[in-house]
Amino acid sequence: MNQKQVSTGSAGRWVGFRKELKVLDCTIRDGGLMNSSRFPDETVRAVYDACADAGIDYIELGYKNSDKIFSPDAYGAWRFCKEDDINRIIGDNKRDIKISVMADAEKSDYKTDIVPKKDSNIDLIRIATYIHQIPLAIDMIKDATDKGYETTINLMAVSTVRESELDEGLEMLGQTPVEAIYLVDSFGSLYSEQIRYMMAKYMRIAHEFGKEIGMHAHNNLQLAFANTIEAIIDGANMVDGTLAGLGRGAGNCQLEMLIGFLHNPKYRMRPLLNCVEKHIEPLRSKLGWGFDYPYMITGFLNRHPKSAIEFNDSDRRGQIVNFYDEMDK
Amino acid sequence: MNQKQVSTGSAGRWVGFRKELKVLDCTIRDGGLMNSSRFPDETVRAVYDACADAGIDYIELGYKNSDKIFSPDAYGAWRFCKEDDINRIIGDNKRDIKISVMADAEKSDYKTDIVPKKDSNIDLIRIATYIHQIPLAIDMIKDATDKGYETTINLMAVSTVRESELDEGLEMLGQTPVEAIYLVDSFGSLYSEQIRYMMAKYMRIAHEFGKEIGMHAHNNLQLAFANTIEAIIDGANMVDGTLAGLGRGAGNCQLEMLIGFLHNPKYRMRPLLNCVEKHIEPLRSKLGWGFDYPYMITGFLNRHPKSAIEFNDSDRRGQIVNFYDEMDK
Repeated sequence: MNQKQVSTGSAGRWVGFRKELKVLDCTIRDGGLMNSSRFPDETVRAVYDACADAGIDYIELGYKNSDKIFSPDAYGAWRFCKEDDINRIIGDNKRDIKISVMADAEKSDYKTDIVPKKDSNIDLIRIATYIHQIPLAIDMIKDATDKGYETTINLMAVSTVRESELDEGLEMLGQTPVEAIYLVDSFGSLYSEQIRYMMAKYMRIAHEFGKEIGMHAHNNLQLAFANTIEAIIDGANMVDGTLAGLGRGAGNCQLEMLIGFLHNPKYRMRPLLNCVEKHIEPLRSKLGWGFDYPYMITGFLNRHPKSAIEFNDSDRRGQIVNFYDEMDK
Repeated sequence: MNQKQVSTGSAGRWVGFRKELKVLDCTIRDGGLMNSSRFPDETVRAVYDACADAGIDYIELGYKNSDKIFSPDAYGAWRFCKEDDINRIIGDNKRDIKISVMADAEKSDYKTDIVPKKDSNIDLIRIATYIHQIPLAIDMIKDATDKGYETTINLMAVSTVRESELDEGLEMLGQTPVEAIYLVDSFGSLYSEQIRYMMAKYMRIAHEFGKEIGMHAHNNLQLAFANTIEAIIDGANMVDGTLAGLGRGAGNCQLEMLIGFLHNPKYRMRPLLNCVEKHIEPLRSKLGWGFDYPYMITGFLNRHPKSAIEFNDSDRRGQIVNFYDEMDK
C-alpha cells in the first residue's frame, strides 16, 4: 500500500519492519524530569520487566549526573544511577535488555562516576550535549568508549541551532567513535518536513562516517509519534519512546504506539499496556505530563518548555489565554 | 528550511501559506457524537463567534438528519439544524463565516428538510456517505446543488474500503457537481505514508474533474494533526478541525494547532484559545473525548471506535489490558 519513494536509508513500508531498528525506553530517565528522578524501586523494576517482556532493546534507567550539582537530598537515585542502585533493580533477574544511562555535558562527573564497563551492568552511555558543549561531549565519548561502553550522543535543542554550526558540530561528532547521533526535538517544535530536512543532513553524516541516526521527540504539538515515524522512514535506526509518553512537559513518543507501528514480531504491546495501567497512569495526576496548551504554545514558539511547566505547576493552570498573552508579548 | 519535493498540488513550505486553503470548524457537529448533539445555545454561539473572530472559513453547526431516525426526545437541536435553530444562534449578528451542515446518506430526509438556499442561512451541505451509499449520495449532491448550495462529500471509513471500489467511487463522485471530496480517516488508523498514497489518488481525481480535496482526521493514534499537515502538503485545500479536538472518541485535529501551523495572518489563535478555555475544556470530564488507549487500540486494529467509546463509558474504564485482550481475540 506504500508508494513512498525513500531517498535515504532502507526504510519504508509500514507493514514491514527493519531488523536493524532498535528501540530505547527512556521512561524513567525523561520522566525523571517531572519528579526529580524520584521513582520508587517498584516502579523502576516494573518498567524494566515490562520492557524486557516486550522485547525492547534498551532501557534508560536515568541520568549519570553529578551529586555535587544535583543534591541527593533533592533528587532521587535515578539522577545518579549508581551501580548499587542499578544492581538492586536487576537483582539476580538480569533480563535480555541492554541498560543505558544519560550523562549531561557539564553536569556529569563522568571521569570518576562512570566505572570501567567490566565493573558495571550499564551497556550504553548516552551523552547529552548542547551545540556549544560539543568539545566536552567529545571527551565524554572518548572516556566512555575507552572504558568499554557503547556510546551515543543526543545533540539537544536542535531547533534553535544555527545551521552552519550544526553542520560543523555533526562533522565533529562524525569523527568520534560514537555509534549513533540523535536528532533531538527538545522543544517539540519541529514539523515532519523539518524532520525530513534534518534527517537528510544527519543521514549524510551517518553514511560518511558509518554511524546510526537516532530520534528523540517531544509531544508539544502532538507530533512526537508522527515525527518518530518520519525519522524512521528517513533512515533512523535508534528510536526513543516512553511508557504513556511519560517525560518532560508534553512528554515523549509513546512506546506502546511505536511498537504498534513497527510490526516487528519481536516486540509485544501487552506487557507495555499492563505496566502503563498498573504503574504509569496512576502517576499522571501527580506528575502532570502530557499534551496541554501551554506546551503547545512553547512548541509553536520554539521555546524551552520550562515556562509552561512552571505555569502548569502554578494556580493559574488552565488559564491558557493568560499564558498565551504572556508568551506572545 | 524546506527541501520537500511535492509531486501534487502547490503545497509545501511550512513557513508560507496557501491562500486557497480553507479551514472548516466542526466542533459542534463531530462533538455532537459525544453528547447526542445536545449543546446549549450559549456554547454554539460561543463557538460561532470564536471561529468568526479567528477568521475560520466555515463552521459546521451540526447534522441535517431525520427526526424520524433520531428522536428529538433523545437528540438535541444540532442533530437537525432546523433553520429556526440556526437563526437563533446567528440572530442579528451574522458574521463573516460560512455555515455548513452535514447530511448523512440514509439518515437524512434531505428532499424535504433541506429548503432552497434563498430561504436558508446555510451555505454548504456536506454529505457523508459510506462507499456502498454513493449512488444515494450522488442524488443528495444533485438535490443540494439544485437548491443552490455549495456541496462537499465525506467518503467515510476509507481505511476499510477495497481499492478497486474506492477508485470507482471517486470516479463517480468526480462526475457530479460536488465541489470537494474529503479524505476521511474515520477510524483514525492511517499513517502519513498511507495519507500520502491516498492523497495522490484523490488529487488525480481533483485534477481530472476540477475538484478540491479535503481532509477529515481522527486522533486515535495521535496523528490527526500530523495527517492533516501531510494532506495539506499533498494538496488538500479544505481541512477540518475542532476546538480542543472535540469529536467522536479520540477526537479530531485540533483547530488551534491547525491555525498555528498555517501561518496565514488571516487566522488568529487567541479567540480559539479563549473559547477552548471558557466553553470547551469545561465539557471534557462529562463528554470524555480525546486520546486514550482504547481508541489507540481500535485505531491500530482499523475498527470503528464504538467499542472503545462503550468501554470508556463503562465502569471498566482504565482497564486497558482487559480491553486489549478483548479486541485481540
